[in-house]
Amino acid sequence: MEHKPAQTRLLKTVKHRRNAPGTSPGTVVAHPEAHPTKIRMMAYGLDEIIEQEMESVDQIKEFQNKWPVLWISVEGLKDVECLHQLGALFSLHPLMLEDIVSGHQRPKAEQYDSGLFIVARAALTLDDGIILEQISLVLGEGFVLSFQESSSNQLDPVRQRVRKKGGRIRKSRSDYLTYTLLDTIVDSFFPVLDKYNDRLDNYEDEVIQHPNRKMIDRIHGLKRDFLSLRRNVWPLRETLNTLIRERECFTDDTQLFLRDSYDHVVQIIDILDSHQERGSDLINIYLSSLSNKMNEVMKVLTMIATIFMPLGFIAGVYGMNFDREKSPFNMPELSWYLGYPFALGLMATTAILFLFYFKRKGWLSKK
Amino acid sequence: MEHKPAQTRLLKTVKHRRNAPGTSPGTVVAHPEAHPTKIRMMAYGLDEIIEQEMESVDQIKEFQNKWPVLWISVEGLKDVECLHQLGALFSLHPLMLEDIVSGHQRPKAEQYDSGLFIVARAALTLDDGIILEQISLVLGEGFVLSFQESSSNQLDPVRQRVRKKGGRIRKSRSDYLTYTLLDTIVDSFFPVLDKYNDRLDNYEDEVIQHPNRKMIDRIHGLKRDFLSLRRNVWPLRETLNTLIRERECFTDDTQLFLRDSYDHVVQIIDILDSHQERGSDLINIYLSSLSNKMNEVMKVLTMIATIFMPLGFIAGVYGMNFDREKSPFNMPELSWYLGYPFALGLMATTAILFLFYFKRKGWLSKK
Amino acid sequence: MEHKPAQTRLLKTVKHRRNAPGTSPGTVVAHPEAHPTKIRMMAYGLDEIIEQEMESVDQIKEFQNKWPVLWISVEGLKDVECLHQLGALFSLHPLMLEDIVSGHQRPKAEQYDSGLFIVARAALTLDDGIILEQISLVLGEGFVLSFQESSSNQLDPVRQRVRKKGGRIRKSRSDYLTYTLLDTIVDSFFPVLDKYNDRLDNYEDEVIQHPNRKMIDRIHGLKRDFLSLRRNVWPLRETLNTLIRERECFTDDTQLFLRDSYDHVVQIIDILDSHQERGSDLINIYLSSLSNKMNEVMKVLTMIATIFMPLGFIAGVYGMNFDREKSPFNMPELSWYLGYPFALGLMATTAILFLFYFKRKGWLSKK
Amino acid sequence: MEHKPAQTRLLKTVKHRRNAPGTSPGTVVAHPEAHPTKIRMMAYGLDEIIEQEMESVDQIKEFQNKWPVLWISVEGLKDVECLHQLGALFSLHPLMLEDIVSGHQRPKAEQYDSGLFIVARAALTLDDGIILEQISLVLGEGFVLSFQESSSNQLDPVRQRVRKKGGRIRKSRSDYLTYTLLDTIVDSFFPVLDKYNDRLDNYEDEVIQHPNRKMIDRIHGLKRDFLSLRRNVWPLRETLNTLIRERECFTDDTQLFLRDSYDHVVQIIDILDSHQERGSDLINIYLSSLSNKMNEVMKVLTMIATIFMPLGFIAGVYGMNFDREKSPFNMPELSWYLGYPFALGLMATTAILFLFYFKRKGWLSKK
Amino acid sequence: MEHKPAQTRLLKTVKHRRNAPGTSPGTVVAHPEAHPTKIRMMAYGLDEIIEQEMESVDQIKEFQNKWPVLWISVEGLKDVECLHQLGALFSLHPLMLEDIVSGHQRPKAEQYDSGLFIVARAALTLDDGIILEQISLVLGEGFVLSFQESSSNQLDPVRQRVRKKGGRIRKSRSDYLTYTLLDTIVDSFFPVLDKYNDRLDNYEDEVIQHPNRKMIDRIHGLKRDFLSLRRNVWPLRETLNTLIRERECFTDDTQLFLRDSYDHVVQIIDILDSHQERGSDLINIYLSSLSNKMNEVMKVLTMIATIFMPLGFIAGVYGMNFDREKSPFNMPELSWYLGYPFALGLMATTAILFLFYFKRKGWLSKK
Repeated sequence: MEHKPAQTRLLKTVKHRRNAPGTSPGTVVAHPEAHPTKIRMMAYGLDEIIEQEMESVDQIKEFQNKWPVLWISVEGLKDVECLHQLGALFSLHPLMLEDIVSGHQRPKAEQYDSGLFIVARAALTLDDGIILEQISLVLGEGFVLSFQESSSNQLDPVRQRVRKKGGRIRKSRSDYLTYTLLDTIVDSFFPVLDKYNDRLDNYEDEVIQHPNRKMIDRIHGLKRDFLSLRRNVWPLRETLNTLIRERECFTDDTQLFLRDSYDHVVQIIDILDSHQERGSDLINIYLSSLSNKMNEVMKVLTMIATIFMPLGFIAGVYGMNFDREKSPFNMPELSWYLGYPFALGLMATTAILFLFYFKRKGWLSKK
Repeated sequence: MEHKPAQTRLLKTVKHRRNAPGTSPGTVVAHPEAHPTKIRMMAYGLDEIIEQEMESVDQIKEFQNKWPVLWISVEGLKDVECLHQLGALFSLHPLMLEDIVSGHQRPKAEQYDSGLFIVARAALTLDDGIILEQISLVLGEGFVLSFQESSSNQLDPVRQRVRKKGGRIRKSRSDYLTYTLLDTIVDSFFPVLDKYNDRLDNYEDEVIQHPNRKMIDRIHGLKRDFLSLRRNVWPLRETLNTLIRERECFTDDTQLFLRDSYDHVVQIIDILDSHQERGSDLINIYLSSLSNKMNEVMKVLTMIATIFMPLGFIAGVYGMNFDREKSPFNMPELSWYLGYPFALGLMATTAILFLFYFKRKGWLSKK
Repeated sequence: MEHKPAQTRLLKTVKHRRNAPGTSPGTVVAHPEAHPTKIRMMAYGLDEIIEQEMESVDQIKEFQNKWPVLWISVEGLKDVECLHQLGALFSLHPLMLEDIVSGHQRPKAEQYDSGLFIVARAALTLDDGIILEQISLVLGEGFVLSFQESSSNQLDPVRQRVRKKGGRIRKSRSDYLTYTLLDTIVDSFFPVLDKYNDRLDNYEDEVIQHPNRKMIDRIHGLKRDFLSLRRNVWPLRETLNTLIRERECFTDDTQLFLRDSYDHVVQIIDILDSHQERGSDLINIYLSSLSNKMNEVMKVLTMIATIFMPLGFIAGVYGMNFDREKSPFNMPELSWYLGYPFALGLMATTAILFLFYFKRKGWLSKK
Repeated sequence: MEHKPAQTRLLKTVKHRRNAPGTSPGTVVAHPEAHPTKIRMMAYGLDEIIEQEMESVDQIKEFQNKWPVLWISVEGLKDVECLHQLGALFSLHPLMLEDIVSGHQRPKAEQYDSGLFIVARAALTLDDGIILEQISLVLGEGFVLSFQESSSNQLDPVRQRVRKKGGRIRKSRSDYLTYTLLDTIVDSFFPVLDKYNDRLDNYEDEVIQHPNRKMIDRIHGLKRDFLSLRRNVWPLRETLNTLIRERECFTDDTQLFLRDSYDHVVQIIDILDSHQERGSDLINIYLSSLSNKMNEVMKVLTMIATIFMPLGFIAGVYGMNFDREKSPFNMPELSWYLGYPFALGLMATTAILFLFYFKRKGWLSKK
Repeated sequence: MEHKPAQTRLLKTVKHRRNAPGTSPGTVVAHPEAHPTKIRMMAYGLDEIIEQEMESVDQIKEFQNKWPVLWISVEGLKDVECLHQLGALFSLHPLMLEDIVSGHQRPKAEQYDSGLFIVARAALTLDDGIILEQISLVLGEGFVLSFQESSSNQLDPVRQRVRKKGGRIRKSRSDYLTYTLLDTIVDSFFPVLDKYNDRLDNYEDEVIQHPNRKMIDRIHGLKRDFLSLRRNVWPLRETLNTLIRERECFTDDTQLFLRDSYDHVVQIIDILDSHQERGSDLINIYLSSLSNKMNEVMKVLTMIATIFMPLGFIAGVYGMNFDREKSPFNMPELSWYLGYPFALGLMATTAILFLFYFKRKGWLSKK
């Protein structure tokens, strides 16, 4: 009867860590399990592109303000010192750095002097589950900073599109790169939703054919996953809405694309709601399957008991010891030539009558 | 105990297909099961009308900008090349084309440079179910483009009204044609709702007279259908609301008609909500019918058991072997002249008393 | 086990009829069961009044624009031709006529060139139920048109007030007449709500004293009635709200009165919500009464079984055939002088002990 | 099994009385059970104060417009004539008078020419329950009119504060008096909420220790009370909100106080919601207590049956009549020297094994 | 069967005390259990700082208006006289003082002439539970007043940061101190939420492995705690929102920090909602565990009964007394050489067949 509820969920929940109440705001403390920091740089214009891994933050300086678009991608948030240097280089607000490192932020978009700060969460599919990784973006004049919690390959498709000469991304400015990153983050939820869809399909079959206790835990697990996902996607909708109205940072053309991402987020929420609904239905179906099965058990058992009760009574009657010698009325059946066959026949008749009655009532049918 | 939940739904759900996360936006990929593309053209003014099937997109050029209203109707979305040519001809934004082809859009209305882009879904009744077909409209200066996923005859009534000389549609411009198409799309839901109404009526009778396991699956199927329909109709309401406030594209007169369509959408949502409510009630009635039936079973069976228990006890008493020779107190009944009849009478009396008690308690009534 | 769910509802639902999808808007088709059309006219000023039944629409012309207020009341909507003539005479928009005749509109208020168009629904109490009759009003310069589906006497109290010389209605213009009609429509719901209140009171008593299967159908019927009523009253609230803000058509003084009607609508909605709540409570009380009753049954029956089980066991023991001659230990009780009385006493003691135990546990109490 | 649902509620519901549909608005009809009318007057300034009971409305004239603040308090609404005279004296709108007398208004605040009209409801605690009494206020230039349905002592604390020379109320104008009255009305709900809190505490204990049928009726009664209260307090919130934004009638300073009353109303709604929540929880706890108790009953009874079933079977075996003389295999136990003790021992062992099994399964534990 | 519902809650509820209805507003009455008043002062600028405990309010005067920031911290609200003196010194509005002392206010922010008045609630973790302590702040020109109900150490981290020379708090003005206090109050909820999280984890394991009656009380207790917390945190969100839009009192820079606190409050509400959801799930899991366990009990017991019923019947048959001498058909088995073994074998076979049947039906499996 062991039970590990954590395993019933596909979505891995990360323990929140948070600065103690009263800590000075802007305090940046790395998570004890943070991944080591790696900095990758892409600097590109219409024709040229440089892609390089940075050893130190200082190296970045030589590219700053010299390329149409500079994309600094930070993966792993262990090296707090390095983040502070980056913060100084791009004059990021201390609260930004705290939000980037703390890793438990609601998706949001905020305008700072140094640029537009966007926090979002991407769904990262691992072998043993799904992680919602926080990805923070800073969109400034001519540069984009992206901060990931791990060196996952989430943003690789964007890199490939940047490398492809002549693509729209190469023709556009940093706001379009920001949109591309956001779009990739948003679309990362679709494969996850498909996965959940498959699970729901499986459970639907199983819950009808083999309803069992573990099902209910698993479905509750799914429902909690959906709630977690919704809590992370819902503010993304708000965020994109903010961005669409933020006419300064994004060109009219990029606005159109952001509107498209917004539609995707709304679709994700629609699908999540529909999944949630299906989860609730599954629980209802499970409960009605279960009570159906239990009723079937009880019905069969009670019918057996009910049939043997009168039979036992008849046997009991002919086991009585009335004195046949004292009176001809005292159990004359016992002395009949066919007394025993008569009794057995009486029993059989009774049983058959009951079975017939049950059948007519429809209690013998399966359902 | 086989179970195919899909068959319990009237509405056919189409598997979503979607570009991989990180794909460049505006990428147009045809659905593997897309219907072959057919282009029909209607060009008309107050007095004249030309109706023709187009072999190639180039053919369209000779009609462009020469007629008061040009309606290009594209049926089937397989020929991506052809769509690209159309896009170039009418300078459609790449995101428009992606939305038209992808076929899993929420209904929406968006203003592009090249014109107003409207996505909606019409209910298409087939022999074996209902399909929600995406119909996309582009309303530009002097032309309307319509894109359907299949060559269904959904829009034929509009064509007939266009052909009828002297009708309001011939006197009006492309905005009125757009309204007419939207109105036809909206009204396509009413016959579907009537169909569901009939189903609900049938189920209502069945659930009370023959409650069975399959009912519950079917009702859950209906409820999921209603949810799907609602998810597709609700944004249509928003869309029409946007159009009504979009004073540039529609004349004041057409606005009045759009307001009428808006009312229809609200009615559809009202009816859907009421259907949904009835579905929930059906489930409750089913559950209470079921538990009623089960209670009836248990009551009858328990009563039989209860009656035979005391009878069996009496028989047991007279089956005891106390030695009558040792004492006159030891089971003198066994030696009575009418001992056996007395015992049988005692049993009958007991049974009748119990039945009487049950009756007085009202447990024998059917309900 | 016959069941006619329709009879469980007080409110008669009228089958919707609707033009086929794609029909030209403004198409006016009479309902097959429409009542024959009758036109009544009242034309009045401060001092004079003429009341007359019109034979034809042409007759109206001689009164038009000659009286301060002209009230044309159309009862029954069968004569489509006549309606078209009226439409021409007062230059009504074709969509107005369609809405008037179709009879399944949500309450609404719309501003047309020819005047303010208001659709509402009045509750009409018949002998065998309640009908929600659509009443459409057109408020123009110096005239009011009212369209009813039948020649019900709903608006008679207004006529009487018009006839009374010196009343406020005679001193006011057509906007005040419109208010009076609306107020009468709104107030028609109060007697209906009282009727439902009585039903709920009756059901409340019945559900506790005689819970039975039919109750649940009836309560579900009531709840559906409430939903229908709410769906028809809720938009009336919106409508009145629109009218109150429509400063052009109504004088400041009439505004005050409209605000009063608005309050009444809000009260009606309040009462409906409270009725709905009571309906839900009734279902819960029914279910708990039912399960209570069933539990009582099961408890009594099980207790009987439980008492006789040990008694039967004792009888069984003394029915064993151990050979008393082989050993003094073999059932010496059978040879006791008071063996049989002892056995009977043992049984009685057991039964009493069990009853005592049940009593102490509180299982013998009624509830 | 008698049932009087009305007695399960603390809140006394008053039968609505209403003018028939179509009655002319502004028609003032006294309630058949209305209390006789009594008029009390307070006229005060910073230094002087006159307090007097008025015999007739004419008497008021000599105080009108001669004192900084004139407070006319009308208690009991039977004397319609007198109300009409008052209406004429202070030029009240007929709709005001109708609202004052009808006594079933939602709380509201409306601006008329003659002044600000406020309707509210105060909770009046009687010996046998609670009544929600409608109190209407008219705030005009230099006067306040208050109308109560009965001569309850609800407003006496305000009178005492007026009498106290040097208090803030004496230094302020009629708007502050209005606030004071409203504040007293709002605060009248707090003692009532405390009363309900005590009830909920009592029920909480009772529902766990002695769950019974009547409890559920009482809790449903409470819940209906909470709904009624909420329906009366919620619009009060709206009303105060209106007043706070009504910058003309109230000085800036009084605004601060009104904001305070507003906070109180919000608190009342908070507490009501929390009470409502507790009521729902109580019902759930009741249901789970009940089913728990029933399960306990069934378990004990079934266990008794289960233990005696095998014992009875053993007794039955040794009651069989196989012929020992025909074969040594036929029931040799019957001839054993210790046959009977062996059988009894077998029975005891079986019973103990079952009890042991039940114990190990945890079915003997209380819960 | 004793029950103390209060102990099932972690959150200690404080009995509301309130002035009687009709009491003059601004009346300040100390709570009978109020803590003795202690006044601590901190006055600081960029370089200097004085920290001192005040004996009397007069002492404060010498620091007033002489330091960049003056923080008066009042702990314990027993000494009403002292509060009145403070009120006079900083010209606080009487309603402010009433709100500070009454201690049952909803969190709010209000602009008075004398400064911005903020009421909030901090979560204070004690050994035996959690208390929500009201903390009121007054932000004026160059000073901040804070009022706590007890001398808890909630605000000590702030004091430490003030003492640290060179910190941002020393460089900023009183608005930043106010933010710091608010931030500390907001963050005080996080440890409490973690505590509840641990409880929920424990309960989750327990509810599945040892479902018992007490669990349900405890979970209901948790849910009520969550509701109370939400009711106190939700208006805090509103309050911070107000402050963020209150551009006069806070510098642009402090606005950024307030926005951060706002995000924290939203997170707290998110977590609370998620906890609430888990609580509801726990109750559902508990109910299904319970009914599962009960079903298991009933199934085992019924199976035992069902198996012994036919066995008892067979024994009964061979206990019948048909006269073997009268006919060869009368129970010849009794005279068989292996009659008794045959009967026992028949019984064993029957039992095994039943067990086999149960097994095939899957009723012997644990779940």
